[in-house]
Amino acid sequence: MELRKKIRIGVIGGAKPEDKFRKIAFEVGQIIAEKGAILVCGGLGGVMEAAARGSKKAGGMSVGILPGNFPKDANRYIDIPIATGMGYSRNSLVVMNSDVLIAIDGEYGTLSEIAYGCVHGKKIFGIGTWDIEGVIPVETAEQAVDKALEDFFPLIC
Amino acid sequence: MELRKKIRIGVIGGAKPEDKFRKIAFEVGQIIAEKGAILVCGGLGGVMEAAARGSKKAGGMSVGILPGNFPKDANRYIDIPIATGMGYSRNSLVVMNSDVLIAIDGEYGTLSEIAYGCVHGKKIFGIGTWDIEGVIPVETAEQAVDKALEDFFPLIC
Amino acid sequence: MELRKKIRIGVIGGAKPEDKFRKIAFEVGQIIAEKGAILVCGGLGGVMEAAARGSKKAGGMSVGILPGNFPKDANRYIDIPIATGMGYSRNSLVVMNSDVLIAIDGEYGTLSEIAYGCVHGKKIFGIGTWDIEGVIPVETAEQAVDKALEDFFPLIC
Amino acid sequence: MELRKKIRIGVIGGAKPEDKFRKIAFEVGQIIAEKGAILVCGGLGGVMEAAARGSKKAGGMSVGILPGNFPKDANRYIDIPIATGMGYSRNSLVVMNSDVLIAIDGEYGTLSEIAYGCVHGKKIFGIGTWDIEGVIPVETAEQAVDKALEDFFPLIC
Repeated sequence: MELRKKIRIGVIGGAKPEDKFRKIAFEVGQIIAEKGAILVCGGLGGVMEAAARGSKKAGGMSVGILPGNFPKDANRYIDIPIATGMGYSRNSLVVMNSDVLIAIDGEYGTLSEIAYGCVHGKKIFGIGTWDIEGVIPVETAEQAVDKALEDFFPLIC
Repeated sequence: MELRKKIRIGVIGGAKPEDKFRKIAFEVGQIIAEKGAILVCGGLGGVMEAAARGSKKAGGMSVGILPGNFPKDANRYIDIPIATGMGYSRNSLVVMNSDVLIAIDGEYGTLSEIAYGCVHGKKIFGIGTWDIEGVIPVETAEQAVDKALEDFFPLIC
Repeated sequence: MELRKKIRIGVIGGAKPEDKFRKIAFEVGQIIAEKGAILVCGGLGGVMEAAARGSKKAGGMSVGILPGNFPKDANRYIDIPIATGMGYSRNSLVVMNSDVLIAIDGEYGTLSEIAYGCVHGKKIFGIGTWDIEGVIPVETAEQAVDKALEDFFPLIC
Repeated sequence: MELRKKIRIGVIGGAKPEDKFRKIAFEVGQIIAEKGAILVCGGLGGVMEAAARGSKKAGGMSVGILPGNFPKDANRYIDIPIATGMGYSRNSLVVMNSDVLIAIDGEYGTLSEIAYGCVHGKKIFGIGTWDIEGVIPVETAEQAVDKALEDFFPLIC
């Protein structure tokens, strides 16, 4: 399928997750790639890096929307780094560029992205993250990606 | 006191609050002005407008940091409108330009500001708003402003 | 006059001007204040600081729209510092928040602001700055401010 | 070569170019793709669209950094649309995400990008565009891309 038409799944989450969340993020990235979707994230460490590593391992494509001025700041698994020079204000750009979101673990930066997700009317699936109205809890990486893609299946089949 | 040295209190909250929260926002704005602090807000309607109206009535000064391109989009009680042209991404600028925050009511936009407040290490006092770790609940407008200014008293006396 | 209704004049220019341009910037700031207008600038050094110093000396009010995260980064003559955390992208905000612009000296940052000024349809008066279609050359600080305010005279008289 | 390591060439220029510049932009996009580089642009019409169409025809990859909130606003030849919601302030992001720039025709928006290019120390090659110190004039699409890639040849061979 044309790159432009692929579903883009945003993966948001903490920069310093416990190992179990890092593992889930890796699997989420891997399954996103296997399903033919594009991974969008904040491009840095922790959940972002684990997801991008999963996507890379499965031959997928990832976009990393960075707070700093330099594309090279992205973790090394990101295929398309996008520098914004906006600091944390870039969090809303991660959301704008995702058709649907998966939140894994995460602190206040992730909360700002969840909030923006709701502002922009995006569905959000969560694993071990903020218990906020608007976040649909799921338990496994597979469930998260399956549900994230559900609304788009007619489009991608 | 020099304008530059005045404490800046960010008031964040919903665009369509119930009357009781509009009333509280008005009082918060009024007390902020009476205490000699500057009101910072998002410059539009609802809680933002009510607080700015309160500040104006008490002879205070308010800064409205707007999502759109035009300073004239600010509600009519704002003294210093700042256009950003950034849409909702301006929410992080409201926080950056506040020494401390008061959240009143509010939906997901407010939640993004609460999250940014925590990211940037600002204290947040809340009335009828999100029940999030990091938001200190208070009950009245007076309590909110008093507590907001508490850390700065040595500075402003 | 109400603060909100005052004309806002953006002063843009180099961070490291020669003394003669620093002197002109100071005078421009001073005359802006004397005429009852508000000075808007980028809030840092060089032309920005000289203009803000002039405004301060004449009892005016200045707004400094900063590239960094912290209002306290503004030069000490700025009355209302606005942090944006956007780096050089804040240049377009300086323009958006000015009714008219005066460019003094300046390098590529100033050129970006001149360009944005033209994009946004603002008049630009220039002293010793880029020789670009759209910049109206003037010779003295007084001329610059007088011409900048000319279109607004019916409003401010 | 890995996507991440490909040189990224920013193509900037007018939204309403004459046919001759549209043709050059198309050729520039085509040659960028043939050389294995990535095209970065503002994602909308005119020079941006022509260059993306050229890149698409030659099987290349293009990134479009958009002023609006919606990736779908990109012209239909863009492979990776990036929404910013920042309006014209996104011009600095186009520059930040380019290793080198080619300017074709263009008005004040393009001038702001040329200015940002110089601020960020990027080389800029120009065809029928602003005659500004810092823009190196070239005459053909081929020359533009060849010279743009020159500094990177040791890297990409």
